[in-house]
Amino acid sequence: MEVFEAIRTMLAVRRYQDRPVPEATVRRILEAGRLTGSGMNQQPWHFIVVQDRARLQQLGALASSGPYVAQAPLAIVVAVEPSRFAVSDASRAIQSMTLAAWADGVGSNWVGFGGMDEVKRVLDIPAKLDVLAIVPFGFPAQPAGRGKKQRKALAAVAHRERFGQPFA
Amino acid sequence: MEVFEAIRTMLAVRRYQDRPVPEATVRRILEAGRLTGSGMNQQPWHFIVVQDRARLQQLGALASSGPYVAQAPLAIVVAVEPSRFAVSDASRAIQSMTLAAWADGVGSNWVGFGGMDEVKRVLDIPAKLDVLAIVPFGFPAQPAGRGKKQRKALAAVAHRERFGQPFA
Repeated sequence: MEVFEAIRTMLAVRRYQDRPVPEATVRRILEAGRLTGSGMNQQPWHFIVVQDRARLQQLGALASSGPYVAQAPLAIVVAVEPSRFAVSDASRAIQSMTLAAWADGVGSNWVGFGGMDEVKRVLDIPAKLDVLAIVPFGFPAQPAGRGKKQRKALAAVAHRERFGQPFA
Repeated sequence: MEVFEAIRTMLAVRRYQDRPVPEATVRRILEAGRLTGSGMNQQPWHFIVVQDRARLQQLGALASSGPYVAQAPLAIVVAVEPSRFAVSDASRAIQSMTLAAWADGVGSNWVGFGGMDEVKRVLDIPAKLDVLAIVPFGFPAQPAGRGKKQRKALAAVAHRERFGQPFA
């Protein structure tokens, strides 16, 4: 799938088919994260690949905003080392990973936002790391549609030469 | 360009051809940012498109880590509204924008990281916003190569089921 087409059509997917994500896709998703650029090339990220059903259910129980993690065939937990750029860098990597998945027909969604200390215990993540996100992945249970999104108009967020001169 | 291929090959580009970025590409870059997902769909971002040479030179003079902004044909200044997810959301949008540009043959690099208050004055950006990044764009002055990157090995950042069990 073309880059812009993936960006244009990618939607949050919270319900998944009962069907594993192929290993080649799992690997491509991880590589997409690993190869992403980061501030001063620090790469302060860790990706914990969870496919065990019982463990996915534990994560789902801990993720108040994303209990559907329990039903996903795959979740990648993203933990970051302490660094000024950590949240930004990991967010870029997650964007790469979710786009790479989408190009393979696999949907995802961002669950949680830092401070998920119980998740560390479930996955043996060292105390000094922060769990930024749980990202469940799977083939969408429903067709993904045509990328219709609720977004602000371009003129509301894009400006030409100076703030307040809409780019239209 | 395919999504994974763009992620795999994208490199930081700091020297640009003296050639404008086509308007269609500028628009696609902005759309890529606008259409990116964000926490609670808040879309806390603003994109200020700078193509005026004198203004680019002002930005380059202010960007201690990226004076080459002065030589770029285009820079997009990314400012964010105060929000818990602002840095993360804007980082995702920047990842989308730089990938969309790369697919059109246009290189970029992330310059600065917040707190660029002098940039606000140059671009009339409201005081309550934070300037997260200046992102210069342009056709690379040198061929971009084959995407050879300095990155940690997959086994150092990817784990299977539990932290410390390398994904190999």
